[in-house]
This record gives sequence, C-alpha cells and structure tokens, in this order.
Amino acid sequence: MSKKTNNIPYRFYLTEEQLPKAWYNLRADMKEAPEPLLNPATLQPATVADISPVFSEELAKQEMDDKTAYFEIPEEVRNVYKIYRPSPLCRAYNLEKALDTPAKIYFKFEGNNTSGSHKLNSAVPQAYYAKQQGLKGLTTETGAGQWGTALSGACAMFNLPLTVYMVKGSYYQKPYRKDVMHTYGAEVIPSPSDTTEAGRRILTEIPETSGSLGCAISEAVEKAVTSEGCRYALGSVMNQVLLHQSIIGLESYTAMELLGEYPDIVIGCAGGGSNLGGLIAPFMRDKIKENKNTRFIAVEPASCPSLTRGRYLYDFCDTGKITPMARMYTLGCGFIPSADHAGGLRYHGMSPVISKLYHDGYMEAVSYKQTAVFDAATYFAKVENILPAPESSHAIRAAIDEALKCKESGEEKTILFGLTGTGYFDMTAYSSYYDGTMKDYIPSDEELEKGFAGIPDIPQNR
Amino acid sequence: MSKKTNNIPYRFYLTEEQLPKAWYNLRADMKEAPEPLLNPATLQPATVADISPVFSEELAKQEMDDKTAYFEIPEEVRNVYKIYRPSPLCRAYNLEKALDTPAKIYFKFEGNNTSGSHKLNSAVPQAYYAKQQGLKGLTTETGAGQWGTALSGACAMFNLPLTVYMVKGSYYQKPYRKDVMHTYGAEVIPSPSDTTEAGRRILTEIPETSGSLGCAISEAVEKAVTSEGCRYALGSVMNQVLLHQSIIGLESYTAMELLGEYPDIVIGCAGGGSNLGGLIAPFMRDKIKENKNTRFIAVEPASCPSLTRGRYLYDFCDTGKITPMARMYTLGCGFIPSADHAGGLRYHGMSPVISKLYHDGYMEAVSYKQTAVFDAATYFAKVENILPAPESSHAIRAAIDEALKCKESGEEKTILFGLTGTGYFDMTAYSSYYDGTMKDYIPSDEELEKGFAGIPDIPQNR
Repeated sequence: MSKKTNNIPYRFYLTEEQLPKAWYNLRADMKEAPEPLLNPATLQPATVADISPVFSEELAKQEMDDKTAYFEIPEEVRNVYKIYRPSPLCRAYNLEKALDTPAKIYFKFEGNNTSGSHKLNSAVPQAYYAKQQGLKGLTTETGAGQWGTALSGACAMFNLPLTVYMVKGSYYQKPYRKDVMHTYGAEVIPSPSDTTEAGRRILTEIPETSGSLGCAISEAVEKAVTSEGCRYALGSVMNQVLLHQSIIGLESYTAMELLGEYPDIVIGCAGGGSNLGGLIAPFMRDKIKENKNTRFIAVEPASCPSLTRGRYLYDFCDTGKITPMARMYTLGCGFIPSADHAGGLRYHGMSPVISKLYHDGYMEAVSYKQTAVFDAATYFAKVENILPAPESSHAIRAAIDEALKCKESGEEKTILFGLTGTGYFDMTAYSSYYDGTMKDYIPSDEELEKGFAGIPDIPQNR
Repeated sequence: MSKKTNNIPYRFYLTEEQLPKAWYNLRADMKEAPEPLLNPATLQPATVADISPVFSEELAKQEMDDKTAYFEIPEEVRNVYKIYRPSPLCRAYNLEKALDTPAKIYFKFEGNNTSGSHKLNSAVPQAYYAKQQGLKGLTTETGAGQWGTALSGACAMFNLPLTVYMVKGSYYQKPYRKDVMHTYGAEVIPSPSDTTEAGRRILTEIPETSGSLGCAISEAVEKAVTSEGCRYALGSVMNQVLLHQSIIGLESYTAMELLGEYPDIVIGCAGGGSNLGGLIAPFMRDKIKENKNTRFIAVEPASCPSLTRGRYLYDFCDTGKITPMARMYTLGCGFIPSADHAGGLRYHGMSPVISKLYHDGYMEAVSYKQTAVFDAATYFAKVENILPAPESSHAIRAAIDEALKCKESGEEKTILFGLTGTGYFDMTAYSSYYDGTMKDYIPSDEELEKGFAGIPDIPQNR
C-alpha cells in the first residue's frame, strides 16, 4: 500500500522479450494438492492412460502432474501468443476518480483478440499439442461462445479440423458467434443433436430443450472417443487449462513488479475457474510460500453459485456422466442454470484447484445477482470506455465494492481484477437490462438439491 | 528495403511517454493546399464564422487552418487516448509466411477499443472541444455504426448528450450497434425520421427508403443548427478529422523509426478518407518535403468508387444540400450505393486532402469487388487470427496483392497498411459471403451520372 503516484501509465505492455517462457503450475506449490480425478468405472484415481483416449497425450500428462512447477511454453505456441499478447495491465484511473476512492485499481484486460476473451490462452496450446501428436481433429463444446471461437481460431492457426457442439439456445440467439467460428473453418453443431448417442437420448427425453453446457460436453466427448484420431478439448475447469491460463497471472506479476506494485486484493470472475486460476497463480504462490496476506476473491453469479452454495464432493464433469469424476465445489452435474441467466459462468462445477484453495481457506467467494452485475458493467463502460463481457463484469462489481469499502475506511489498497473479455456478442443481455426485462434468479435450496440426483456416494478424501 | 530480420516483434507498442503530443496537419506542408470550402449561399470561400453554427469553435478553426503544421493535443484528450492508445504496430509474419513473399508486411491495428475502429481518435477531441465550449449537446450520423459508437463513447467520457441519426437500414440490421450506443447514453434515431425537415421531405418522397449516409448527415446538421447550444460532429472527410487521425500515422512513423524500418508502400482503405489521411500524413510529408519515393495506395469498393470513377469538383457533403461545398472526388451528392454493398466506405465523396493529393499525382487508387475483399478478409483471419472489418479488408486485399507482386519480382519491399477495425458487428456480411448470397455490384456509367443531378455548375479552381 503505497501513496498514489502519477508515473504509472494507463496501459502497461511488457515487451516481447519480457513475455513468460513457461507456464506456472500452482499445484506443485500447494500445501495439499487437489484430489485426483477418478475413473468412473473403477472409482480409482485416473491415470494418464485412462484419460489419453479423451485428451492429447501431452495434455493428459499436464492434467495429472502436480509436481512440476514450470512447463516450458513451446516456441510455436509462444509465436501465436505474440500475435495478441502481452495483454495490457491497465490502471483504471477513470474508475478510481468516478468512485472517488483512495484505492488503486488495476485490471488485466484479456479482451483484445478475436475470441474476445482469455480463452485463446488455452486454445492455442490445446490445438498445438493435438497437431504435434498427428491427430486428425478436435471436438469441443461452447456455451456463450467464447471458448468455441477461441479454439476455432487456434485450430485455424495449426490447420486442424474442429467440431464444436454449441448449446442450442446460444446457437440460435448468437448466430454471429457461429459465423465467426465458420470464418475459422470450424464445423458448428447445435446441441443436443442427433450426431451422438448422448444427444439423441436427451432429445428423446426433452425434445424441446435448448441444451446445456453439460450436455454439449457429453456430446463432444462421445464424438471424440468414437472418431478415429480425434480428441476432446475443454476450455475451463481442468488443471491443464489453469496451467495455460497462468500466463495471465505471470504477465500481471511481472508488470506489477516493474511498476513497483503488488496487489492487496486479487479478484476474478469464476465459472469453471480458468481465468481466476490463471490470474491468481503467482500471487497465490507468494501467499502459500511467503505468507503474503493477499486476499483472493472469486465472484460468481447468484444463479449458478457453485462455490457459495455448492458442495465439495466428487462429481461428473458432464450431464451424461461419461467423463472422469473430479472433486470440486459443484451444484451437481444435473444442475442447469435458469434461462434467465445471461452470459457464461453457467458450469455446474468449479476447477478442482480453485475448489481446494477455497476449501482450505486461501480464498473468499461472493455471488451477485445479474442486474447488480450489469449496473457495474454499464458504469464501467461509461468511465473506462470498454464494453465488458457479462462474465467479466462480475469481477468489476466486486472490485467496485472493494474500492468503495476503501473509500469508507480511507485505505489505499491496491486492487487487481481480471477483465476477461468484451461484450460485443452479448448485446441481447445488455438490451434486456435496459428495457427492464432482465430477471434476477436465485435458485431455491430445493431446486439446488435436484442437481445432485444420481451422483454415486463415494468416499470424498482419497 | 533491408534484409528480413528476426528481431522485430510481432506487436510493437510505444510507451505512454512516446505517444505523440501534437497532431500533424499535412495541409501545411502540401505544395498546394486543398481548395477551400464554399458557402453554398454565396459560392464564396467559407469562413470560420460561416461554419461555426455547425461545428464547435476550435474545430471550425482547425478545419480552416492550412498553415499551422502542428496542433497540440489537449491534456484531457491525451488522457483519454491513453486508455486505448498506443495501438500496436504489427508485423504480419504469418501472412508473409502464408503468401511465401519476400515482402515485409506491417499493419497498424486500430481495432482494440470498444468502437472497434480508428473512429475514436477524432470522436474524443470533438467531444472534448464541444464540452470546453460549454455546448449542451452534439448530433451526428452513422452508417455501419463505427462512428456513432465511437462518438457515443467519447461523449460519455465528457458527460455530453449526443443524438445519433443512424441510417435506417443499419438501425434494424445491426441492433447491437444501437445497444452499444445506448450503453454510452446516446439517443439513437433511425434516419430518415420525422424529427427534421430533411427527414420528413425524404420520407414523403420515398416512404420505403432504408436511408443513406448523405440523408442522415442532412438530418444531423439540421438538428444541430436548429437546437440551442448544439453542434454537429462528423467522423470523416473533413480536414479536422484527418488532423486528429494523424495520430495513427505519427505513432506508426515513430514505431517504424525505432524498429529501423520505413515503408516502401503505404496502403489504406478509403471511404471518406479519415483513416487513410491519418495513416499517410507523416510519410507523405517526407515524400513532399524530402522527395521520398514512397507509394501510397487508396483502396475503395468497386460499388462506391469516388476516386477511381468519380469527378474532381465542388459538391455538397450531404444529400439535402445544406452543408458547405467541398472540392473533392465525388460520385455526386445524389449517389446512394447499392443495397448489395456491405459495410462502410459508402460515402459519395472523398476528403479534400486525399482528393487533392490524388489529383496532383502523389497517390494511387484501386478498387475491388466485395467478394475479392472478403476472400482477403477470411484468409487474413485464418492466418493472423484477427477478424477484420469489411472496410479494413480492402486494405488487406491490396496489401496481399502487392506482397504477391513482390513474390513475382523477388523484391523485399516493406508494406504498411492500416487495419482500421474489427468485424464483430459485420457478421451478417460474412454470413452472406459464406452462403453465396453476397453480390458484387459495379455501377454502370449511366447510374453514376445520376448522382450529379442538381449540383451547381461553378468554377472549379478558386
């Protein structure tokens, strides 16, 4: 906590030379690593061999490795990163002024690439490793569309065919997203579809369904494991994804170091935990290894509150229950967020790394209703000129509230939050906020109970 | 022309300290300045007093001043620029590799801000000067929506009310654009409307019209001059706009200097000429003052070919013939581009500065059919990951063709083009390109003749 200075630029970019050359694997420095994935057939810890039919080999290794602290970023991946990285570390001078807060507010802005979000950081290595392995293609799912767009772009860079199962509701509500993926050469299929067993089953049970992320995952995984030379790619939750996303935190860490700054509070929105896990990684390392008293805040929607209202147990990663099981804060793999919920952050579970850190008291979590989130989004847009994604706006909301607490207390805290992306493809949600048709939805305890139906009752500590 | 080196970064950002502190007014260094605006009532050169009812005072002065080479950028404007500038100077290594060309291709990327384009560079000072003057509001028009979005964002920064007349066709085809402007607090009215005399007249004549940029300009100007304390803002064509946009060229110039580079060819898309005039300014200065043999290429759509098929004469800047007259390459203020034409670059005239330079042989101009432009856009998106705006893709098309000529000749030329913006709001056009419904339209000589009806026959050299 230092006095406000005026020699910090509005936007700070590392040079190409200063970009990280390795990803950081926070698991290696955690006092207790997250619990292992379980093979659902045996309920034994999954091995690299178990998950290799689903993920490319190198990614399967990264997924399981909680010992290696640094993974070198392959040169080919770094060369793609250099197209859109470094992302700027931004000082929100205008937001500080508008709030009249003594706090110093920084944000790491990941929206300056065509995927419109941080998702490209993991899409690029996932496409690269698949290509290296000589695979014939990848499959994935996408909800709001950021991940599908990112992976489409990454696959185009490496000339790799991609099939995207897009949640049916989004497919028709966000046709532009689909067109961007087409630009990159991806095949986009509305989910549930008749191209998989899982899809056909759900279509029979609920013919009118607009789909869900969990269902799209089931389809994408099934398609991958039943197609020759094909693997699956996931944009969040998994350890490998948090590893790749550490680039966000590492850049932020170096940039703040060069500016003579260190955050008192680090804030990120939390859906599956990819951005949050990446942003906090090196700062959490300092908390774990050097007892820094930094606060970490996960911000989630009140309509999909896995950390604040979920349970910490072994659950499936998909609705169809065909994936390995992960111990995580979850609303149950049967949970589907209300159609009133706009934007992303709609996954039923939370990254095992984030879940473990939260469970062990290293992090806090808060949830917000979506109108409160859009209040923050539009306020931020007006003063900082950036139109934020609804997801990212959860972090903005919490950052504003922390800055206002500083105003109350007079403390000059340094706040860092992740601005994961832009909202250009989310104008339908903004529009419903303006015309007053946006609804706040908070699931009842009874509704939440339903998500847990059919999850096997298994010992929780391995 | 130097040997290809590997120490040039993919993306190069100036530091905040290196940002330009003054705009450059190329007119001051031109051997012959562009012809003056004419007051349409007297057919005499317009004075600052003549245009002050339309534009803020400082902007009226900038418009008329062809002697002052540098205008200091006010600190408040520089502080807003710092939110999204510097824009990166990008080396298109992947495009070079894909084309297998010995050419070195650079582009200046202006798409990393919420307006999605370079338009914000002039919107910010226009909003600032209006606020400084104590005005109560601004009016403007927008076609594809980039300018309206940019000015909305700028007015939000300075708490200034804004009314945007949006070409009716775009208003309904691009509702998201309208929602972004709403986010910034602007009032958006589909044009033609019943809120102005000009709009009512056109609605009576052609009730089913989807509007035009020239018509929206008439409405915005009328609204400004008939409202207390209100002025009009224009996003292109005018000298003041090219002055502000010189920030693009100045940053590019400094960046290339620091990298030890200088372009052999500078390429920009050309609608009203704002991006092109800004990008070329300091390089053109070198050509004029130091006889550098740099080539400059303006790229326009074959469906709206003001430079390549227009006439160099005094014309009105709007359909309603209420603005001052400018000597420029024009298709006639009665010209309305075919509905088959996607994206921007649809203005009937060309900036007087660009027109004069072209007329005096300092520049070249080429036109492309839109399917050829979208060929380039999708190719570029796949290899460089950026989804370009249709407008910007005209420059990409020409840059690719020049790079391919280098491949033929073996010349290692250095090419710089302006990538003015992103295409996130143009997916309808991309979609029509994919499904084969996109049409190429080239107006016949007879059709072009119609645009000139009713322009007074006045002496062309003053």
